[in-house]
Formats: sequence, structure tokens, C-alpha cells
Amino acid sequence: MKTSIPTSLRSTVLRKIKPTSKEQEQLSGIVSYLIEKIDATASELGLSDVFAQLVGSAARGTWISGTHDLDLFITFPEHTSREDLEKIGLLIAREITKEADIWEERYAEHPYINMKFKGFDIDLVPCFRVSSAASIKSAVDRTPFHNEFIKQKIVGLEDEVLLLKQFMSAGGIYGSELKTHGFSGYLTELLVIHFGSFGNVLNAGCNWHPGLVIDLEGHTILKHNDPLVVIDPTDPKRNVAAALSINKFSKFIDICRSFFENPAEEFFFSPPVYPLNDIEIMERINLRKSSIIAVVFKTPDIVDDVLYPQLYKMEQSASALLEQHDFTVFKTGSWAGEDSVVLLELESSIIPNVKKHIGPPVWLRKHAEAFKSKYKGSEDVFSMYIEDGKYVVDIQRKYPDARLLLKSRLSKCSLGKQLTSSVTEGFEVLEGADICRIIDVDFRVILRNLI
Amino acid sequence: MKTSIPTSLRSTVLRKIKPTSKEQEQLSGIVSYLIEKIDATASELGLSDVFAQLVGSAARGTWISGTHDLDLFITFPEHTSREDLEKIGLLIAREITKEADIWEERYAEHPYINMKFKGFDIDLVPCFRVSSAASIKSAVDRTPFHNEFIKQKIVGLEDEVLLLKQFMSAGGIYGSELKTHGFSGYLTELLVIHFGSFGNVLNAGCNWHPGLVIDLEGHTILKHNDPLVVIDPTDPKRNVAAALSINKFSKFIDICRSFFENPAEEFFFSPPVYPLNDIEIMERINLRKSSIIAVVFKTPDIVDDVLYPQLYKMEQSASALLEQHDFTVFKTGSWAGEDSVVLLELESSIIPNVKKHIGPPVWLRKHAEAFKSKYKGSEDVFSMYIEDGKYVVDIQRKYPDARLLLKSRLSKCSLGKQLTSSVTEGFEVLEGADICRIIDVDFRVILRNLI
Repeated sequence: MKTSIPTSLRSTVLRKIKPTSKEQEQLSGIVSYLIEKIDATASELGLSDVFAQLVGSAARGTWISGTHDLDLFITFPEHTSREDLEKIGLLIAREITKEADIWEERYAEHPYINMKFKGFDIDLVPCFRVSSAASIKSAVDRTPFHNEFIKQKIVGLEDEVLLLKQFMSAGGIYGSELKTHGFSGYLTELLVIHFGSFGNVLNAGCNWHPGLVIDLEGHTILKHNDPLVVIDPTDPKRNVAAALSINKFSKFIDICRSFFENPAEEFFFSPPVYPLNDIEIMERINLRKSSIIAVVFKTPDIVDDVLYPQLYKMEQSASALLEQHDFTVFKTGSWAGEDSVVLLELESSIIPNVKKHIGPPVWLRKHAEAFKSKYKGSEDVFSMYIEDGKYVVDIQRKYPDARLLLKSRLSKCSLGKQLTSSVTEGFEVLEGADICRIIDVDFRVILRNLI
Repeated sequence: MKTSIPTSLRSTVLRKIKPTSKEQEQLSGIVSYLIEKIDATASELGLSDVFAQLVGSAARGTWISGTHDLDLFITFPEHTSREDLEKIGLLIAREITKEADIWEERYAEHPYINMKFKGFDIDLVPCFRVSSAASIKSAVDRTPFHNEFIKQKIVGLEDEVLLLKQFMSAGGIYGSELKTHGFSGYLTELLVIHFGSFGNVLNAGCNWHPGLVIDLEGHTILKHNDPLVVIDPTDPKRNVAAALSINKFSKFIDICRSFFENPAEEFFFSPPVYPLNDIEIMERINLRKSSIIAVVFKTPDIVDDVLYPQLYKMEQSASALLEQHDFTVFKTGSWAGEDSVVLLELESSIIPNVKKHIGPPVWLRKHAEAFKSKYKGSEDVFSMYIEDGKYVVDIQRKYPDARLLLKSRLSKCSLGKQLTSSVTEGFEVLEGADICRIIDVDFRVILRNLI
């Protein structure tokens, strides 16, 4: 059974997300102006084989109204040295920034420039013009091939892509950056091309299973161990969906099914989530009767793609530390603003002083005698007895309080380079009502879904 | 390396536990008097083939000074009917009780009489005189065979048996009744015969492993799954040590080793254990910071061999109930006086209201949709989310308080017939300081080793 998208809903949504002619003209104007300017600057430097290319959704007609992101690549011949590419690429880009409102140099595999210009957010990225996507010299070199492939295949399907991107954004699963682990723009475009329409993608999604392989060009396939494998038509070794997590993959299945149960506009424009106020925080803590702990520290000055993996790693490391010491961790979450917060929900932040430590069977004489002489008469031992044929000691637990455990041991955990520095400089461990001291609105919004 | 028992220690202990000549004469006098009386009574009934036999430690010279227990068997020819044995056996026994201070009828496999007479505790037990221990008609028929075997082999080793019994008593492992699960008198005698001396038994014990088989007569052996197997020389199918638990077996190994480290009188006469007073109870509870719970109910009027297995079963059932509901049980214990107490030490008697309930993977559509529709919008659900590709709900826990769980569910657990009745009539659940309301001295003694 295949279910269709109500026509009126399609139109209502498209009316809101499809760029107007005026918006499109404005964008085209800016793009032409900048391309000419880059090409002219290259010419002036005597580089007739260096020129600009627009890539990304703006180039493919798959951008959503109101988003003003442009990716302008400054392309160099394949034989250019990496050093020249970086040096001359930045030289040209900096010439362009003279008209920018603000700009800064950023670093991925090599440096590029981000600038704000007439309300647009523009990346100026030097890259090599290689002969095929399989022989790229830098990750960004792949983008022009994606661009060519999509431009050829997407004609007539642009609206389908807009709908799918909007649907995924509202569901919190759009974006392949390491903060989100969701669907990239290129991936949504390939899904639309493969399935033929927005409705077809959603119908398929209802029945997806992990291990699904989509191979548009019938390429030979390398084995990938990801929930979803979409073979890159421009580079058959690459899985376009490699960044997609099992949870975002599952969430997509979930919202596809929910959508068909009740196809409504809220699946495209999710209602705003309000920050929790102090009273709501206290109510929720009292209702759950678990222990909610926040580890708070200064956010290091690094890009999200470096920061978020480290935050997720800290969630894992802090949980592992707590569970090693017999605490039960229910749930974790993290948030980053000026400060960063790793939130941990425990069954209880206080556990008994006494800990049962099980030793060797009595009949294994050497081990048994070593165990007994180690613990006999020790100050930390409440009592020693035999259970199931084994020596058991009730001993004093070293860390019966989770906050003290985190305070004394967290900075020694495996946390990632920059978070280790930040945590080593100092951090706070807040519990229960004290969490209300974190007043940042974005944190309070996130908190609503965590507790 | 074999270690010997210091001679002076042997003498000191034997001086205290070996019956004096006067004590022995007194016992012999009583025994002769009662045997003659039983035989005469049988004769008067025209039963010349029914006569009395002394069995047990008194018959073998292996009784400890101060213990005044006599087992007098009224033996009937093998062809007697069970009905006649019971009827006539009790008739003769009741004639003897005419001189008793007090007496009562008791029941094992068939009825017998227990009486107090001139400071002795005497069992008058009817039994069949069968041709071999392998062809017994009732469990007690085996005893005369044990008696014959030991009487022949024990000559010269009586002191060794006394020392071993005393050593095991002080260690809390003597007695094969279902309260103790320790070593029976017959078992200690066989161990002395097999190893040759008290010291040899202890030397061997230091290195025992579960699965040890001792076969004095070199009989063919049935496979037994007990920690210690001692083939009954009078009935090769039977393991004399079948009642011995792994913990009492291990405890014996433990005290054998401790004894040789420091051979002292305290291994034969353990220092008295004083009852905990209220202040000590509170101090220990505050030190451990665990939750200590006592289930208190009226002790049913049944013999220890029926009561204790049911108490141990209740410890298990109550623990299982608590652990099913996510409580962590550290330790259990039980005690019976006028009231019975099952003691449970928990990590915490209060756990969070919220409970994480993990559902099916999102991609298993049928299960996933059933799970989602079951919990969506339910009052008990705090939130629903996806974790590791599975639906998860945070739901309201039904029993966040262990006391309320026990109150409402304990009587439905598998508890044994008489304890079910007793608990159904009513029970209390005490926690922490309230445990001081149990003032029985014996309970307070037991408590010292539990918390």
C-alpha cells in the first residue's frame, strides 16, 4: 500500500519554502557579481585557468527560501601545488572580502574564507579541478562532481527536494555535521532522484531496515557497516550516508510512519519548544525522583565539528566512570553555548558506603589466603563471610557520592584534547535545584527534551 | 607439609568435653534401666521378638560431656506391618513415659516419642530390624547399621571424634538438620575413621575441593552432585554428606586453615556473641548507609526442619521479587523465635519514580507500531524517544518503595505452605531505626553478624 501526500498540504508547504522570483533574482545577481569578480581577480594575477564555480543547493535550485548560504569554489588546475592553491586561493578570496561586512579565515582540510555580504553567508573555497571524483586531492574537490551529477538529474524534481529537506529539518534529522549525524543535502537529493518523489521517499522510509543499500548507478559495492548505504554515483567507494547515525536513521522511519497516520503541516514546521522555567525544572526533578547532574565548563573556541564529537565522548566517558563505580546512568545529553553542559541522569547520586566485594572460592587455597590476608583487619572492611563458597568482604566504598567522583576523576577520563584542557582548567558539578543556575535559554529548551 | 595438634591443647580441650566416669556411669544406669523396662513391657505384651537398642553417640562413646541425648530404638522383626509397628511401638513407648517428667508424640516418617527423664532428653523410636541397610523400610531403620559399623571401627578413636565435633560446633558447622546444613555426628565419625585422627582430618580439610569423594569400603559409586561425597559404608547408594551445604563445606576448609595458623582454644570454645543494643544498631545502619529492612511475622508452630527451609525460601523469594522490580539486594538473613524475621539489606529501599523501558527497534514495523500505540499518550509515560535505534519510554515505576512492594506482593510469592499462611495472616515491614523494635536477644545476636 502506497500513501500519497495531500495536494493542498504540498502547496501550502511549498508556498512557504520555495524561493520567490524576487529572491531568486537577488541571489543570481549576487552570484554573477562574485563570480565575475573572482575571475577578474585571477586574470589580473595572470591566472587564466583559475575561475569561480557556484556549487551547493543554490547552484541546483534546491535551496529553501530564507536560507542565504552560497558555496563559491575557486577552482585551480589539477597540477597546481597544494602550497600554491592555498596561497593564491586565499589571496583571491581576500580580495573579494574587501566588500564584505565581516569575514574570517576558517580551516577544514585546507583554509578557506567565510564572509557575510549583503545578507548572504558565503564560503570562498579553493579547490583542485580533478578529472574524476575518484582521484580527488582534497575532500572539497568532490563537490563539483556532486554538483554536476545533481544538476543533470534533478531537473523537475526540485520541489520534491525542498519538501524532503523541510520535512527532515522539522524532524531534527537534517544536516550531516557531527553535531547532528543526520541527512546531508546531497543525500536528500540522491534519495529524491532514486525514489522519484518526496512521497515515494516517505513511503519507502516507513519500511526501511538498517543495512539498506541504494546504488543509483549500479556500481560495484564495497561493504559498508552503516545503517544506510547510498553509493556515491561520482565515487563508488564512498557511502554518502556514512555520517547518518542509527538514531537519526530510525527517527526518519518513525516520522515517515507518523506523517502518513496524520499528514499535517506540523511535520514541516515544528511548533516552537519553550525553555523550561525554574518551577518546571523543579517539578520535573521531583516527579522523576532520579538524580540529575550537570557538569558545566567553559566551551573551548573550536568549530562544532570538533566540539560535538568531544561532548558526545564526554557523555560516554562520564557514564563509564560512574558505572565502573556502581552508579546507574539512565540518560545523558549535552549542550554548548558560552559554557558547555554534559547532563547525566542517575538512578541515585548517592549509593551506600558499603560495597560487596566477592573474592575467590575458599578451596583455591593460594588465592583464598592472599585475599583473606589482604582484607583481614583492614580498616575499610565492615565484615568478611562466605557466600556460595566464596570469600566476600563488605568494604567501604571509595566514592559513594557521584558528584565527588566526577570532581576528582573526570579530568583523568578520555575526553578529547580541547575538552580535557577546558575541564582541567575547572568545572562545576551541579545537582537538582542547582541546575536552575544555568539560565541560558537554549539550554533550557534542550532540557525540556531531556528530563 | 602436615601440621600437628599441640598436645597441651588436646588435653585442655578433652578435659572439658570428655564425660567423667561419674557422668558415664549415670548414663549407663539410665540406659540399662530403660532397656530392661522396654523389653519387659514387650514381653508382657507377648512380643518376645521386640526389644530395645541404644543407638547414637551414647552407644558409641562419642558423646560430649554435658549433652544428655539418648536414642532408644524399639526394634520389630522385618515382617511386622507398618500399622502394627506404629501402634504397638507407641503403646510400649507410652508405657515408658509414665515415669517421664514431660513427654510428647512427634512425627518424622512415622511417629515417635520424645521425653525428659532424670535430666536426659530421650527419643523412643520404633523401627524395623531389616537384613541390610540397603533394604530398609523406613529411614530410621538405617541407624542400627550405622551404629554397628561405627562401634566396630571407632574403638580407640573416640577422643578424636569428640575433638572434631567440638571444633565443628564452635565453628557453627556441626549438625545436619535443615537449619544448619552442616556435618552430622555419623559424618564426623566416618571422617575420623577414614583419616585416622582429628589432626589428620584438619590437615586434609585445609586442601579440600568441592567434588571430593570419600569411599571407606571401596564401594562402587553413584554420581552425586554434592560438595562432599562420603559413601555410606552400610548403603553404597547414599551420600552421608548430602545435607552439607557449599558454604558449610567452605567454612570447614576456612577454619582448618585458620586453626593451623594459630592453634588456640577459641577454635573449640567460641567467645560469646553479645546482642547488639539500639545504639549499635543505629551506628551500623548509619555507617553502611544501605537500607536494612526486616519482614516480621508470627512463627508458625512447626519443627525447625520444616520451618528453616521455608525461611530460606522466603529470603530467596523476597530477593527475587525485589530484584524483578529493580532493587539491588546485598544480603539476606533470617531468624526465628516467637516471631520470625527475614532481614534484607538493599542498596536503597527507594528508587526513582522513572523507569526506562526499552522497546523494539524502530524498523521492526509491527512490533514498533504496537509498542508506540501502547505507550503514546499514556498517563504513566514521562517521555518517548529513540536510543540505539530502539523506542524507549521513560515510564512511572509501579513500586519505587521496597516496603510498599513487599507489603502488597510478598504474600503472593512462593513461600512454603506454613509461611504463606502466617504471612497471609499479617506481617510488618520495618526499616532502619524501626528494627530496634525487635527486642529479642537471640535476634540481636544474629544481627551482629548480619549488619
